[in-house]
Amino acid sequence: MTYQTKNLTPTTYHHQEVLQIPTRGKPLTKITSQIEPIVRDSGIQTGLCTVFLCHTSASLLIQENADPDVLRDLEAFFADLVPESRSYYHTTEGPDDMPAHIRTALTHTSEQIPVVRGRLALGTWQGIYIWEHRQRSQTRQLVVHLSGNA
Amino acid sequence: MTYQTKNLTPTTYHHQEVLQIPTRGKPLTKITSQIEPIVRDSGIQTGLCTVFLCHTSASLLIQENADPDVLRDLEAFFADLVPESRSYYHTTEGPDDMPAHIRTALTHTSEQIPVVRGRLALGTWQGIYIWEHRQRSQTRQLVVHLSGNA
Amino acid sequence: MTYQTKNLTPTTYHHQEVLQIPTRGKPLTKITSQIEPIVRDSGIQTGLCTVFLCHTSASLLIQENADPDVLRDLEAFFADLVPESRSYYHTTEGPDDMPAHIRTALTHTSEQIPVVRGRLALGTWQGIYIWEHRQRSQTRQLVVHLSGNA
Repeated sequence: MTYQTKNLTPTTYHHQEVLQIPTRGKPLTKITSQIEPIVRDSGIQTGLCTVFLCHTSASLLIQENADPDVLRDLEAFFADLVPESRSYYHTTEGPDDMPAHIRTALTHTSEQIPVVRGRLALGTWQGIYIWEHRQRSQTRQLVVHLSGNA
Repeated sequence: MTYQTKNLTPTTYHHQEVLQIPTRGKPLTKITSQIEPIVRDSGIQTGLCTVFLCHTSASLLIQENADPDVLRDLEAFFADLVPESRSYYHTTEGPDDMPAHIRTALTHTSEQIPVVRGRLALGTWQGIYIWEHRQRSQTRQLVVHLSGNA
Repeated sequence: MTYQTKNLTPTTYHHQEVLQIPTRGKPLTKITSQIEPIVRDSGIQTGLCTVFLCHTSASLLIQENADPDVLRDLEAFFADLVPESRSYYHTTEGPDDMPAHIRTALTHTSEQIPVVRGRLALGTWQGIYIWEHRQRSQTRQLVVHLSGNA
């Protein structure tokens, strides 16, 4: 699905795309390479990219993109910080659901990255991730919003 | 209070409103229905909505909007994670003030939601909340900023 | 370094600056006074300011700007919450690196502040901070993005 609107003037654009991302039973999935072509195809040179996740039991995260051990440590830390063994009121959707909501509150539902000279202004070590907090594979919906000057 | 500015061209708008929200002694107050009419009245079809909270002892949160038990569990988890019984240097504003600052650091001062086809692109289960971390009722100030194409 | 683009029409602007901030061995460095002149010089009256940090072992934070004890308590709480003594897989960059990544995940890589009547809409007690999570002094790169109407 793609919703796209461009101004009639050559200088100001708002551009949106909706992505469906499967999270195949692993907690952190890098999505940088799925966002970059949307930025490039928008033609925006100076602007802002917002990535928004339409869910309350998964997160967006900008994190280290090189060593997979960082991702293992992140997942292990959060599993210990928000244990399934804790006593919760909200249990109807399974033991991993309330921890997923808390992990989402502790992290982020959206990320904002400036677009500088037509590219995301990510640092050398920054990657964009979707963080699945449920144990079963899910398909998660993202909205990518771009605004700026071409 | 309403600050509103619209471009002379028909296509690009920046629109702002300032809200005062009382938090009546309960931690989480849903404010989705107070943001939605601002989006609708702005006339923006494709854009971005930013909600910004002007305080350091309360948070904004996008969370599950259906089961009140989720809100009880969120509050209970954070009360345990950041206990008032911990020894703090900053105690002059009462035992709940420093925990409130830490809870704010762990959550969010602003939330961004794309506007798609004139509506907030919230998922089915997503609601926007103000999370009061002080024990007394407060009135909290929010700035809602919208940019986009009508 | 300054990258600046302004529309040909008098009403809509996107403006960016890149800052290099040294963090001199102290965890929290207030940067509000380095962002404010960028807002003022942009000439934007109604808009949005995004501050983005190009790193995964330091954070941005909007927090209490008056009592230094708040900053001491924030640092002490996070040092206890994410201890260096925990067993991590990712250890090649030193014992403070993986805790730094986790502390970044728990806080924020960007902050958004509306610009109202030409000024950041920060509350009375809000300051913008860079939070260094590594123990050695670093120089950290920020991108400040402004969009809005002049």
